Amino acid sequence: MTTVKDAPPSVVLFDEAFDRVSNEREKLREMLGGKGAGLAEMCRAGVSVPPGMTISTEMCRQYYAHNGTLPPTLMQEVMEKVKVLEERVGRRLGDEAKPLLLSVRSGSKFSMPGMMDTILNLGLNDKTVGALGKLWNNERFAWDSYRRFIQMYSAVVLEIPRERFEHLLESARRKHQVENDNELPVPALMSLVSSFKEMVKATSGKVVPADPAEQLKGAVEAVFRSWKNPRAILYRNLHHIDHNLGTAVTVQAMVFGNLDEQSGTGVCFTRDPGTGEKLLFGEYLINAQGEDVVAGIRTPEKISSLKSENAALYGQLEKTAQLLEEFYKDVQDIEFTIEQGKLYLLQTRTGKRSAQAAVKIAVDLANEGVISREEALKRIAPEQINQLLLPSFDPAEKEKAEKESRYLGKGLNASPGAAIGMVSFSPHEAEKLSEKGHKVILVRPETCPDDLHGIVAAKGVLTSRGGMTSHAAVVARGMGKPCVTGCSSLLIDLEAEEATLGTHVIRKGDVISLDGSTGEIFWGAMAMKAPEFTGELTTLLEWADSFRALGIRANADTPQDARRAREFGAEGIGLCRTEHMFMDQERLPIMQSMIMAASKEDREVALVQLRAMQKEDFRAIFEAMDGYPVTIRLLDPPLHEFLPSLEELLESVATRRAKGLEGQRLFREEKLLKRVRELKESNPMMGLRGCRLGLLFPEINEMQVTAIFEAAVEARRQGIEVKPEIMIPLVGHERELQAVQQHLEKVALSVMEREGMNVEYLFGTMIEVPRACLVADKIAETATFFSFGTNDLTQMTFGYSRDDAEGKFLQRYLDGVEIDGEKHKILQDNPFEILDRDGVGQLMQIAVQKGRVVKPSLKVGVCGEHGGESSSIHFAHKIGLDYVSSSPFRVPLARLSAAQAALK
Amino acid sequence: MTTVKDAPPSVVLFDEAFDRVSNEREKLREMLGGKGAGLAEMCRAGVSVPPGMTISTEMCRQYYAHNGTLPPTLMQEVMEKVKVLEERVGRRLGDEAKPLLLSVRSGSKFSMPGMMDTILNLGLNDKTVGALGKLWNNERFAWDSYRRFIQMYSAVVLEIPRERFEHLLESARRKHQVENDNELPVPALMSLVSSFKEMVKATSGKVVPADPAEQLKGAVEAVFRSWKNPRAILYRNLHHIDHNLGTAVTVQAMVFGNLDEQSGTGVCFTRDPGTGEKLLFGEYLINAQGEDVVAGIRTPEKISSLKSENAALYGQLEKTAQLLEEFYKDVQDIEFTIEQGKLYLLQTRTGKRSAQAAVKIAVDLANEGVISREEALKRIAPEQINQLLLPSFDPAEKEKAEKESRYLGKGLNASPGAAIGMVSFSPHEAEKLSEKGHKVILVRPETCPDDLHGIVAAKGVLTSRGGMTSHAAVVARGMGKPCVTGCSSLLIDLEAEEATLGTHVIRKGDVISLDGSTGEIFWGAMAMKAPEFTGELTTLLEWADSFRALGIRANADTPQDARRAREFGAEGIGLCRTEHMFMDQERLPIMQSMIMAASKEDREVALVQLRAMQKEDFRAIFEAMDGYPVTIRLLDPPLHEFLPSLEELLESVATRRAKGLEGQRLFREEKLLKRVRELKESNPMMGLRGCRLGLLFPEINEMQVTAIFEAAVEARRQGIEVKPEIMIPLVGHERELQAVQQHLEKVALSVMEREGMNVEYLFGTMIEVPRACLVADKIAETATFFSFGTNDLTQMTFGYSRDDAEGKFLQRYLDGVEIDGEKHKILQDNPFEILDRDGVGQLMQIAVQKGRVVKPSLKVGVCGEHGGESSSIHFAHKIGLDYVSSSPFRVPLARLSAAQAALK
Repeated sequence: MTTVKDAPPSVVLFDEAFDRVSNEREKLREMLGGKGAGLAEMCRAGVSVPPGMTISTEMCRQYYAHNGTLPPTLMQEVMEKVKVLEERVGRRLGDEAKPLLLSVRSGSKFSMPGMMDTILNLGLNDKTVGALGKLWNNERFAWDSYRRFIQMYSAVVLEIPRERFEHLLESARRKHQVENDNELPVPALMSLVSSFKEMVKATSGKVVPADPAEQLKGAVEAVFRSWKNPRAILYRNLHHIDHNLGTAVTVQAMVFGNLDEQSGTGVCFTRDPGTGEKLLFGEYLINAQGEDVVAGIRTPEKISSLKSENAALYGQLEKTAQLLEEFYKDVQDIEFTIEQGKLYLLQTRTGKRSAQAAVKIAVDLANEGVISREEALKRIAPEQINQLLLPSFDPAEKEKAEKESRYLGKGLNASPGAAIGMVSFSPHEAEKLSEKGHKVILVRPETCPDDLHGIVAAKGVLTSRGGMTSHAAVVARGMGKPCVTGCSSLLIDLEAEEATLGTHVIRKGDVISLDGSTGEIFWGAMAMKAPEFTGELTTLLEWADSFRALGIRANADTPQDARRAREFGAEGIGLCRTEHMFMDQERLPIMQSMIMAASKEDREVALVQLRAMQKEDFRAIFEAMDGYPVTIRLLDPPLHEFLPSLEELLESVATRRAKGLEGQRLFREEKLLKRVRELKESNPMMGLRGCRLGLLFPEINEMQVTAIFEAAVEARRQGIEVKPEIMIPLVGHERELQAVQQHLEKVALSVMEREGMNVEYLFGTMIEVPRACLVADKIAETATFFSFGTNDLTQMTFGYSRDDAEGKFLQRYLDGVEIDGEKHKILQDNPFEILDRDGVGQLMQIAVQKGRVVKPSLKVGVCGEHGGESSSIHFAHKIGLDYVSSSPFRVPLARLSAAQAALK
Repeated sequence: MTTVKDAPPSVVLFDEAFDRVSNEREKLREMLGGKGAGLAEMCRAGVSVPPGMTISTEMCRQYYAHNGTLPPTLMQEVMEKVKVLEERVGRRLGDEAKPLLLSVRSGSKFSMPGMMDTILNLGLNDKTVGALGKLWNNERFAWDSYRRFIQMYSAVVLEIPRERFEHLLESARRKHQVENDNELPVPALMSLVSSFKEMVKATSGKVVPADPAEQLKGAVEAVFRSWKNPRAILYRNLHHIDHNLGTAVTVQAMVFGNLDEQSGTGVCFTRDPGTGEKLLFGEYLINAQGEDVVAGIRTPEKISSLKSENAALYGQLEKTAQLLEEFYKDVQDIEFTIEQGKLYLLQTRTGKRSAQAAVKIAVDLANEGVISREEALKRIAPEQINQLLLPSFDPAEKEKAEKESRYLGKGLNASPGAAIGMVSFSPHEAEKLSEKGHKVILVRPETCPDDLHGIVAAKGVLTSRGGMTSHAAVVARGMGKPCVTGCSSLLIDLEAEEATLGTHVIRKGDVISLDGSTGEIFWGAMAMKAPEFTGELTTLLEWADSFRALGIRANADTPQDARRAREFGAEGIGLCRTEHMFMDQERLPIMQSMIMAASKEDREVALVQLRAMQKEDFRAIFEAMDGYPVTIRLLDPPLHEFLPSLEELLESVATRRAKGLEGQRLFREEKLLKRVRELKESNPMMGLRGCRLGLLFPEINEMQVTAIFEAAVEARRQGIEVKPEIMIPLVGHERELQAVQQHLEKVALSVMEREGMNVEYLFGTMIEVPRACLVADKIAETATFFSFGTNDLTQMTFGYSRDDAEGKFLQRYLDGVEIDGEKHKILQDNPFEILDRDGVGQLMQIAVQKGRVVKPSLKVGVCGEHGGESSSIHFAHKIGLDYVSSSPFRVPLARLSAAQAALK
């Protein structure tokens, strides 16, 4: 039951928080910050926590609303609570016999580690320091604490540069010939305190107040101030955290890990955040304060060694971990202090973990009965699944590489994954090297269909030009091959077979590493981390399948891709792009001869050859997808994509002519040039392609549909269950679809009659032109299915040519364009990565609604790249689509996202 | 009151039609065709008409529904009605003493002049011919009629080629040494009839039946058949007439204009169809049959001369004309015959008229109180206004041409307007040349329905024979195409493909200029002159202004265009494209230096120069538009449009390199090439342009807005009222507009502050990207106006790049694509000409609705080319836009269309 109090509380004791603030976790974090909420919850869970209070974030907001002055009665209220602490602990603030020391720490709704300020040992002054020494019978501890306090308070509250203290410490260490501050003898510490005070007075004219109440007020103000220090603002900008939330302040009785060898401090995860294994994972230091662990001055011990050194304490820690996991129902990342053998928890928060650990922990917690399967599914960020399935470089290795100047530069992350190989600038050479067993990275200004064999042979591809939809990018993504494109700082000299990138010269044969997930390029071979399909992942995805409503298909153009898609759990192919089948080195010349054909008859000759090849492709795909539907898209791209580039031909022809080289080659190139010029378009994206091509050259469609049905018949004869769904691309007017479909239904029937065998099939269309969405009712009269081609639909709805936009203005739109000194962030997300719901999504909703009014049984899916992106999958679920289709590697992600969408 | 009978009638007498068919004009025309309805209505109006009957169009439809057989009882019914005619006339069909002769003519709902067949003098045979001679006491007349009948019947019913008769006639004329057929003596005619019969028998094995009933049946069938002759089909396609309507058949007692000098025939308009003047306008021939007038063999007299020759008859004609105008409330085009002094009307139809006449007649009829102003406005097809405003030849140039002996001669001013083109003597060749993009003037002795395709293809028509109602004249006027007929000094040698006119020899391919408004012909291409407004047009458009709801603006980029737009009645500029201002020869180099600038500073230098130039442009435009709003669009096109083409540069650089020409020019070209390559885009239409450009290079926008406000201030100081509306193009996301507008508002303010003068202004956006329509609510929060850029919106909604589509597939979509022998018409209209309501229009409606919800005061207009197209203007009215903006020349059309939309 939720209870929210009317007036926002100003200060609450940890154990009052549930009653006075809220018993709802979210509210608690909002008002008391993560730390304050955590301490309150630990009290409630029965975990041992030093007593304390939290000043609410509301006080911070009021502090800023009143030009940096504390609310008038705040310190009075705080001092009243301090009295409660004094009673509980049995020590009093400023007491000259049994002084209470306090820690003052920040804590906001969202974790901002290390960004704001902290003051420890508050309450010490020239009088209480002696009492502290006597109380713990440890004068060195007392003076060291006093030294730390003066130092910290002066830095944080009085804003004295930290280096000034470091100088004085340095000379003290030199004078006493010790290496570490904790080896300094008491007189040295006493003298340091004096010189600190003098330096502070000389530098700022201020002093550290002796009155603990005054100390406390200064500390609270300093924590509030630190909410708006530059690094905190930067952090919030980076993590999209609201600047108006404010920080809470936690005031807590100090416990001391640095009293003796029975004391200590540590940080610890309740499970291994790397693997997810169920064991305590962390580090501790005996006789130390928390900051010593973080500072890294002494090397801490592994938490596992505590088991042998102090089994009782380890047991206490284990029990607390168990308690916290049960309370929070998740892995915790805790800070603890041991004061003379007694364990205190100072902080707890949800433990950050690796993708692999996330999956294992979620499945384990569900199997342990701590959380439900639904909850386990919700716990995993879908992108984590992808990380798990891609080869990647070891993060530690990356850091090392940067230190060693092996980081070379960055391009567009065109196709994810990691690859290592020797550089080759020639597709032909890349093939040869690969045949000899070498791993090759193909490096080109850009690639074209002629280079396909080189891409196939290479482990990864790097280009200096082209965007996310350049030839290299599309082909590589289709093959699941790492690719970095548009690396504009890469200057390639093809003749010299070398390139420069940053300050490095890359020569043929040099080994480089390519991170297609980030776009980074490294010198030499980086250590790899292999992907794993663990048992837990399999379990998790099975659970996902049991909850999701959306079907999951894959975009696959080859039998290999189809098989991989099935392994990853795809329930069919949502997009089989037939044009990639023509890009093969053996087939391209036939395709080209079809395009160059002077007459319909000449074209037929080439088509007959292509038909036989396509037939076998389709048969093998049907085999791989036995029992599942296969959506085959008829030829879509403009024909000039199959011919050499106009620029190359122009240069070559002009050069040959100027040099008087009048041979056969010139003649052939001139002929090609003529055809390429005929096919040239100002805006090929909106030119002669898709069904427009099929309407003007129906014999191409006819060949493809004949091949599909011949393959289907052959597959059925082999006992394979086939379900072809033939997709007519780029329809914008219902009559386009009617004309094409009417013809192809006849072709299909004639093959089935000739072969004496029936095949179950559907005809439908790709919805990728805005107009198609607007007249979806008319199109649905003919189509039995719609598949949203969200890539093109996004291009046309925004009027962004992806090839041009990504290099020219889209990144600037995402980063923010600067006008007159002001930065304007135009787009929140790249619409080619995350579906634009406002515009493109609205069109999709119109299409679904109109289409289903006319044909309630209309099957609707997405086959653009968004089909593999989590938030877009949620949208697909929301608007009632039947399935999404993504690249095979993203199928597991899609399965999980679909389940999460259903559970929302 | 409307009465429609249940069963469609088969045959009705003229005076039964109102009772048996309908008293509603539309129904009457539908069932009886224009001619049959006209005859029925003339009977009712009390006009003298030879008695007759009409076979309904339903019979024609049944004829085609039953594979070309007449409905079983039809001829029986016809023969019963013939009996009624016989009684009324007092002669009998086939009677050997007092034979009745009939005319059999076609007539469909929509006038298709000369496209279908007619048979006259039906009822003649070897026996009745003698009786006819005796009856009228005129043997030559009888035998000439018989000769005509055999000739016509054989050609139409038996389908004997017409030339065969011409050969025989030719030799008869030679033998008897006469020039015209009507000079042939009786024996010659008798012998011609025999030789006609023999030739027909020899050619086809058929004979012209002697039995009049059989003749009649053959004639009716032939008229039905002629509905589907190729030229009729072509005509219907051209005029979008339904092929299923069918033709009616009128069977009427013959009256004879060729009996004697008291007889004659003529055609006549109740007002001048060229100028609209209120006087009888037409031609007549004494002692002739109707076909003689049309054929142009004898040159007819002007109707005005009838006044002096036979005042009584002229008075009779005038009275009939008055009667008919009152009945029809419109100008009539009548055919009449005078039989021995008695006037008969054979046909009446709404008179086709020139655009100029249409306007004058409509205004006059309204002023005469015959029709209302609303009706007058509805009478004018908006495209006619455009014809009126087509430029004519510059009078100064005409004078000059006369001095330079380029004036060739004069014919009849048969259809107004001016045309320039290369001469072609063959309709077929004219069509070919036109397809290749040539402008052609078709030159022929006279034209016939078979030449229609050549007239369609030509820019203008010139004939040496024929009058104002000759085939060429009527057809050309209908098409609004300049035409000069009856230029008797033009001697044409069709075989040599040349002609002489005065002292000039005109050969195929020579360029001539034709003034259809004056009948003049000039050598070479004459300079054109901007059109002028007549008083009636001014009146009509003022009436239009009083009814229309839409505002009318013009697209104008220069002060000249702006002034012209004002003259034509534009109430502001809806689109001033600033980029055209940079294309000027002097400015382009500065623009290029801005684009080539290496730094922002270098760019500023060029911008300062451009600013001064733009300022003066804007000032002059404000001056021309004093008091009216001027919408200025900020720079829109991709920058590479201002640089040389990549192809040219590539070729030039490659050639220079290959030839070793390493000079400065190569260096400069290489630099340019590099920049052009950087700016090159795969799909520039969807690339870095519009506001994207302004966001990345804000200094360009800043320069433009500074120039606008400096110009506005200067204009205001000159006493000019300025209303700049600054339009930010290609916005697809509200934040684009916010960022640009926020900056530019500041720029505007700073100019106004610096100059100490305020200017009334608006900021708004062009809606031309589909997404902008979908998020119009968000955009309307910032914009104060929307202007639909329907050209780009059409491109992106359809995914048609206009540059590519029109050449590559759009025409095929409009003509119909052929698949497997079947033709599929994909698009009804070119969406770049006629706004696509289903798709683009739907988006516009969404935008208007969403925009006005947020900002009810939002001003919304159209500035794409559709703003000057009639049906698109209707749509703009329907969805509640505030204005349309078109090219200045189309402003009058837009004013009329807007009024018609409001009156709908």
